[in-house]
Amino acid sequence: MTLLSTRARAVRASAIRDLLTLTARPDVLSLAGGLPAADLMPRERIAAATARALTDPAHLQYSPTTGTDALRAVLAAHESERLGRPVPADRTVVTTGSQQALDLLARTLLDPGDPVVVEDPGYVGALQVLQAAGAELHPVPLDEDGMCVDVLADRLAAGLRPRLVHTVSSFHNPRGVTLAPERRRVLAGLADRYGFLVVEDDPYGLLAFDGRPPRPVAAHGERVVRLGSTSKVLAPALRVGWLTGPAEVCAGVERLKQLTDLCTSSLTQAITAELLADTAWFARHVARVRTATAERAAAFTAAVAELLPGVESTSPTGGMFCWLTFPDGTDTAELLPRALTAGVGYVPGAAFAVREDVSAGGHAAEARCCFATYPPGTVREAVRRLASVVPVAAT
Amino acid sequence: MTLLSTRARAVRASAIRDLLTLTARPDVLSLAGGLPAADLMPRERIAAATARALTDPAHLQYSPTTGTDALRAVLAAHESERLGRPVPADRTVVTTGSQQALDLLARTLLDPGDPVVVEDPGYVGALQVLQAAGAELHPVPLDEDGMCVDVLADRLAAGLRPRLVHTVSSFHNPRGVTLAPERRRVLAGLADRYGFLVVEDDPYGLLAFDGRPPRPVAAHGERVVRLGSTSKVLAPALRVGWLTGPAEVCAGVERLKQLTDLCTSSLTQAITAELLADTAWFARHVARVRTATAERAAAFTAAVAELLPGVESTSPTGGMFCWLTFPDGTDTAELLPRALTAGVGYVPGAAFAVREDVSAGGHAAEARCCFATYPPGTVREAVRRLASVVPVAAT
Repeated sequence: MTLLSTRARAVRASAIRDLLTLTARPDVLSLAGGLPAADLMPRERIAAATARALTDPAHLQYSPTTGTDALRAVLAAHESERLGRPVPADRTVVTTGSQQALDLLARTLLDPGDPVVVEDPGYVGALQVLQAAGAELHPVPLDEDGMCVDVLADRLAAGLRPRLVHTVSSFHNPRGVTLAPERRRVLAGLADRYGFLVVEDDPYGLLAFDGRPPRPVAAHGERVVRLGSTSKVLAPALRVGWLTGPAEVCAGVERLKQLTDLCTSSLTQAITAELLADTAWFARHVARVRTATAERAAAFTAAVAELLPGVESTSPTGGMFCWLTFPDGTDTAELLPRALTAGVGYVPGAAFAVREDVSAGGHAAEARCCFATYPPGTVREAVRRLASVVPVAAT
Repeated sequence: MTLLSTRARAVRASAIRDLLTLTARPDVLSLAGGLPAADLMPRERIAAATARALTDPAHLQYSPTTGTDALRAVLAAHESERLGRPVPADRTVVTTGSQQALDLLARTLLDPGDPVVVEDPGYVGALQVLQAAGAELHPVPLDEDGMCVDVLADRLAAGLRPRLVHTVSSFHNPRGVTLAPERRRVLAGLADRYGFLVVEDDPYGLLAFDGRPPRPVAAHGERVVRLGSTSKVLAPALRVGWLTGPAEVCAGVERLKQLTDLCTSSLTQAITAELLADTAWFARHVARVRTATAERAAAFTAAVAELLPGVESTSPTGGMFCWLTFPDGTDTAELLPRALTAGVGYVPGAAFAVREDVSAGGHAAEARCCFATYPPGTVREAVRRLASVVPVAAT
């Protein structure tokens, strides 16, 4: 007899995930992982901030569940600037990475069977959390301007009443696209009209290659919970994310976080507070990361155009991901073992399909590639390896 | 209309918790918090380990959901020594503090309505997690030798079939007692006989004042999931806990942890691995913490005997907590506001009652005091302040 609960057995386990463990082999260049570039992380600055933080015993102790006062104040200032209006510190909750914010929100806001709108293809970490909370998922497609809010509006007009709409608004994971400014206004308006909450998941916004992060959906309305993260601009090992949103949501999330992990590390919160409060340094650092990442994106798309001429690629304007489409219908899940043999990994599009039971049409001839992990020359070599196993028909 | 889900609204919020926020006032000596002593945390050793960890970029990156190989190997060695038999590294999962282990276990192992046995009074963080998972709680009392396993055996014989039995086996939170050796054997045997899992929650075991941590329940059987933590022996800000248990449980917990927070900080895991691997240093450090904590416990019980002569107190042999009983029936929740005015805080016994609706008899004339936070002189001053507001009848 199994020891596991019904809901634990329902957590999406997949053949693709098993395959992806192979991308960790040292001989494989992995475009799969979604790992920010380790060579761009501010290691020495973090070391200096840590040494300073450790002069205060409070930074080894438990800390308030909602986050330290110092970090919440810095985050509120940061978000206020992003939104162009004041975000109070007491509407900010520090989380153990923004993945925890997603999990806490799903458990705080959803009862089993509640309808939730998600993007298709969608961020797998969000799909998993929502499924674990028992949500009924309603996929809405994306195009080059992000979520098709006209499709969403039609569904709402037809009677759909979601509790939440989840969107990776900027530099989408996995699709690489960004929600257009007008669509942001429309989405916030739909939330007000139909009474749902938008969860604006925004770990990549600062990585706008032109240095101008898109204006958040939350700038257009009050029914938006915004998620942020240090993982893509400082370092994942800090495990510091945050959410801002309505007071009732913050209070509910705090109560649940208390029993989930008591608090986020006061040490990594102190490091984060110092780095984000040094706005001049932080701006220079982000500029360096986004410039280097833009070079990697350019190397990737150039290599795809040259070496995989028949394959369609998004043109990234920020973030970490590029989405490939194989017009000849190449099944990217079937291709993956050969790609791994050639020394390159990616994530097959099917991994991001909302409905796993749709074997046909579930993004089978598509793939997500992360261009951010390696320097340009290595990125090109990864594409070269991929091209070596792609059927001639596709190119 | 509320934004919160039914289950979020069910998360135990309490008047007592609101009162306890007052213990954070700077003029209050708090015996309430359960905070390990900041002055005993190895700040310089942690600073040195951090500086070394940060020479490797891998310690800023994401890491495997189950924990880094380095830390799992160290934890497996540590647990093998505690249990007196080999614990393989792949039966060890690193968690973001042991509170996360409790939450992941509850969600992995329980369906709503599943019966679970808990100690009464019980660790509030466990009671909350189990209630949030929808468990049906069956309280079993404690005496001076820990959980009354004879009562448990009677319930089992009468037909109770719990999925889990949760116990803080050593230096109980809040009750201060330790499960007797023979009862540990009996409990492990009942688990085998009736097919439940024991969750052996053991954050305090190393803080045995005589330097001999009790032999774990897990040493007596296979149906035990053991939880450990660095918070009480190194520093809570590391947010590093762990669990060891059956392979199926580890795999289920790993799948859920993936969507809960992706991974625990690779930086704090590296620090922890270095400190625990330096077994000679760690043994000296733990000896220093437990000696200092024993002095604080002695100061506390001596002050209670002298200044609160009518109040009964447990005689701690380890850990951080002492349990007071007021034979005259003083309601400790009613007393708390006056105690706070006098500059001392504690947790009323009612906060640890399994059944909140039992207004009478729910540990109303009892209280938990943490003696570990302050040096002996301050501990004595805290008891003096408490004595100043205790009704004459109680003393």
